Amino acid sequence: MDYTLYLVTDRAMAGERDFDDLVGRAVRGGCTLVQLREKDASTGEFYERALRLKRVTDYFHVPLIIDDRIDIMMAVDAAGVHLGQSDMPAGVARQLIGPDKILGVSAQTVEEAEKAESDGADYLGVGSLFPTATKKDAIAVSRETLARICSAVSIPVVAIGGLNGKNIPLLEGTGISGAAVVSAIMASEEPEAAARRLKDSIYGIL
Amino acid sequence: MDYTLYLVTDRAMAGERDFDDLVGRAVRGGCTLVQLREKDASTGEFYERALRLKRVTDYFHVPLIIDDRIDIMMAVDAAGVHLGQSDMPAGVARQLIGPDKILGVSAQTVEEAEKAESDGADYLGVGSLFPTATKKDAIAVSRETLARICSAVSIPVVAIGGLNGKNIPLLEGTGISGAAVVSAIMASEEPEAAARRLKDSIYGIL
Repeated sequence: MDYTLYLVTDRAMAGERDFDDLVGRAVRGGCTLVQLREKDASTGEFYERALRLKRVTDYFHVPLIIDDRIDIMMAVDAAGVHLGQSDMPAGVARQLIGPDKILGVSAQTVEEAEKAESDGADYLGVGSLFPTATKKDAIAVSRETLARICSAVSIPVVAIGGLNGKNIPLLEGTGISGAAVVSAIMASEEPEAAARRLKDSIYGIL
Repeated sequence: MDYTLYLVTDRAMAGERDFDDLVGRAVRGGCTLVQLREKDASTGEFYERALRLKRVTDYFHVPLIIDDRIDIMMAVDAAGVHLGQSDMPAGVARQLIGPDKILGVSAQTVEEAEKAESDGADYLGVGSLFPTATKKDAIAVSRETLARICSAVSIPVVAIGGLNGKNIPLLEGTGISGAAVVSAIMASEEPEAAARRLKDSIYGIL
């Protein structure tokens, strides 16, 4: 798994633009995996959207991760699922999805990170590192906590929350395996170019 | 499976009362199966609530059906899942849950009913038969359509939507296998007595 540049989707940010096309451009620009996040969709809509997006990620040979919903992940045979702390407990999720699917877990503290790793997480999403409009209730995580989490666990850690080309260099030396972005790509007029620049930034510190 | 008196939960109607205790009383009064419906819960909350309610339904040896969410159903090993027309397609759901779990599907027309049966549904929920405050956007189904659906399929049909002791007798002769209720029990001050009276009503027409 390559966690270098992890795109987390936001349908509202796509606006009038074709969502699947936008994600495809981002992947063409260098995103190494994609998480589909649909907080307001019915199960039927989420399923249809996941099915459509999987055609895009399959075409570009990048893994598709489904936010929160193991049922959707299984229904479209996505690569894995990402769980927040208010989603299914990670240990229960691991039993349901089996050993081969990717299990990502959000963690904000060393304790949550160690628990997630022992529950079977394959990677951690840690943040928010910087102010973000996407998740207004996101807990702030300091650069120091991020570094302590990276030292405490042996699984890859992906930083998330307000990341862009300017602040990614500030995370040098923390031990992260990649950067997850939402608005820096989803809200960009040029998602492919944005992904390319972000990837240069993250390559610069890995 | 005994579909005679099918309790569909509504947490808001329980108000200040203990939800699990209320459902337990309803089952003691004669409900033959229980569907947990949680439209506003996070996945983590839904999981915890389903786990708690399953202790109650297990204690009384009645099946627990989970509304919409196959992931929750699998996580708590509930008896089955109930899908609306905006949830996961029934055929996909049947593949995910395997042959042994119960699959219920909501249907409002003969066409939907026949499709659900061929997709692998074990029973149908048909309604709303009568005006209801629970689902304001529920499509009205006439007594005649209900009877036509019962004739068209070979799986059990459960009537739903505004059912109470007064109007259940109006469904005599339609061919239903049971009545599903929400407010007639969940909003009752005496859920056990309410369930007992409703069961008498439904027994009177089966």
